[in-house]
Amino acid sequence: MAQRASTIAELSCPVPLRAKNTVLLGHGSGGKLSAELIRDVFLPALDNSILSRLDDQAIVRVNNQRLAFTTDSFVVKPLFFPGGDIGSLAVHGTINDLAMGGATPLFLSAAFIIEEGFSIDQLRRIAISMQQAASAASVQIVTGDTKVVEKGKGDGLFINTTGIGVVADDVELSADRARAGDKVLLSGSIGEHGIAILAQREGIEFETTIESDSAALHTLVKDMLHAASGIRCMRDPTRGGLSSTLNEIAAQSRVAMELEERAIPVREEVASACELLGLDPMYVANEGKLIAIVDSTNADAVLKAMQQHPLGGQAQIIGTVKASSAPLVTMRTSLGTTRIVDMLSGDQLPRIC
Amino acid sequence: MAQRASTIAELSCPVPLRAKNTVLLGHGSGGKLSAELIRDVFLPALDNSILSRLDDQAIVRVNNQRLAFTTDSFVVKPLFFPGGDIGSLAVHGTINDLAMGGATPLFLSAAFIIEEGFSIDQLRRIAISMQQAASAASVQIVTGDTKVVEKGKGDGLFINTTGIGVVADDVELSADRARAGDKVLLSGSIGEHGIAILAQREGIEFETTIESDSAALHTLVKDMLHAASGIRCMRDPTRGGLSSTLNEIAAQSRVAMELEERAIPVREEVASACELLGLDPMYVANEGKLIAIVDSTNADAVLKAMQQHPLGGQAQIIGTVKASSAPLVTMRTSLGTTRIVDMLSGDQLPRIC
Repeated sequence: MAQRASTIAELSCPVPLRAKNTVLLGHGSGGKLSAELIRDVFLPALDNSILSRLDDQAIVRVNNQRLAFTTDSFVVKPLFFPGGDIGSLAVHGTINDLAMGGATPLFLSAAFIIEEGFSIDQLRRIAISMQQAASAASVQIVTGDTKVVEKGKGDGLFINTTGIGVVADDVELSADRARAGDKVLLSGSIGEHGIAILAQREGIEFETTIESDSAALHTLVKDMLHAASGIRCMRDPTRGGLSSTLNEIAAQSRVAMELEERAIPVREEVASACELLGLDPMYVANEGKLIAIVDSTNADAVLKAMQQHPLGGQAQIIGTVKASSAPLVTMRTSLGTTRIVDMLSGDQLPRIC
Repeated sequence: MAQRASTIAELSCPVPLRAKNTVLLGHGSGGKLSAELIRDVFLPALDNSILSRLDDQAIVRVNNQRLAFTTDSFVVKPLFFPGGDIGSLAVHGTINDLAMGGATPLFLSAAFIIEEGFSIDQLRRIAISMQQAASAASVQIVTGDTKVVEKGKGDGLFINTTGIGVVADDVELSADRARAGDKVLLSGSIGEHGIAILAQREGIEFETTIESDSAALHTLVKDMLHAASGIRCMRDPTRGGLSSTLNEIAAQSRVAMELEERAIPVREEVASACELLGLDPMYVANEGKLIAIVDSTNADAVLKAMQQHPLGGQAQIIGTVKASSAPLVTMRTSLGTTRIVDMLSGDQLPRIC
């Protein structure tokens, strides 16, 4: 982490003029432009109190049952990459969005938009991969849809997975619940998914193959919820990376966060790859990591539970929530300086999920 | 209907060699190739008892609550057409798939795959249209997702909507429940959605503008379920048209059906447009019509309830279910002959929804 390259905020294009009034790749980045599109287009049009919480999942009540409900389309390119494929990713991604609401995932739908000419063998391989991922996580894919578009009007395969889970009555997790004094917990090393995709896409070879961290996090979440109360919010830092996710929480909760760079695990090969590619791992997507904001009195108990789970062995407390008049995330670097950790502002890594 | 053109089955290309092993436009047609793709690829991979019922929605149990769950991606082209747009269609389509399971629709998700360069004004217009359609149907869009793909890797906008509804304990509708002696009920005139899209896409002008019949059918379904028991199954005949939907039910229930051509309402302008275009309205998509298979003793009561609803004014009993060793749909034509009404076998009308 010491020789980290410049931040993406410094490298990427400036936010383009709104006057252009067309959708840019950056609108799908999970960073500033995505937030702008949601705020300017979708929230005013679809306005309702559940959507405007901007959590990764909606928590709704059906009669006396609390349900989590979440949707995600996957447009990752390439479709197959070290550590997974679009099918397993689509299952893990939606399970994780349910889990971040504290839900037990139960059922998934799967909808395929296929470009004419796509290989049926590859489609079969991807469907089997989805089933394996679902089965390993004890969820069922119970309904589906298939559409085909003309050659040149799609890109091989896009998959939407939407999920339903149940949420216990005493679980209340939301991005607006972080409070001054809370601790910021991270479940493991960052940047692996994004670098695995990018390396595969650009044909870059490293000494060690970097595999995506794509994984279903719901059993880790279950252990954390069981260990202690006092968890305010959970998020999986996917598009836009750790930085963008923490900024979203800071904005929703109207707080600041101070991070410790030394505490954030980055695998040696990911750090090297990032340096080579001019990327900051803080902005690179993860698909098997989570952040939890936890009341300080419960932080150690939750951390211990994380470290005892196979997907949380490297979990760390990486920072503290601070009171602030403006939402802000800062980081004390390993050089002892402090820098602002902003949201991703460009489109450095499109189609990472 | 008397001067109906040749059937699509006669006009369309023969089913291509399986050896080609790539996805064809016809695999998204809702006809024979779609059924083949589901049977050969998705069912073996994702095998489970809920999915293999092949209904338009899954009925699942969460604790003691029966839920309907359904997903649909919309790739319709053009995005705006007489009678609707991709947004209202996406809301109506998913509401209808829930309603066909006898569910009261409650919540929708909305996921957008946007091609770089798409107009933000159009996106806003579509989001507002979704909200209006949802609000008119008393459902809430509670969660969403936005992805952006590079220019040339999509086609403007694709939308996935996935829905949740509740199903009463005494409602049991499924495509495998048709029995000899049952009546086939149709809620109104056929072919309007497909012709509206095709006319808009191809720039064909008729004397009267043909509007899509896109509508939310859940209140019609509610009235039907309230009127009488004895409804075996409901389906909305979308892709592949009335013919393909009836063939699916016949196959799932292992029965035959005999239809009366005279009883099937087709608006004059749709019949003329079909004749001009060489299409058979039996294969043209609808987005605001339903078929119900009803026990003969209850058929009149259900029909009457349909006719009293604004969306069922032209409802008719169009045929009878017969015992058969092989699933087969036949139709007595207005000329007094009998013809086989097969599933759609080509890709006559791609991207109709």
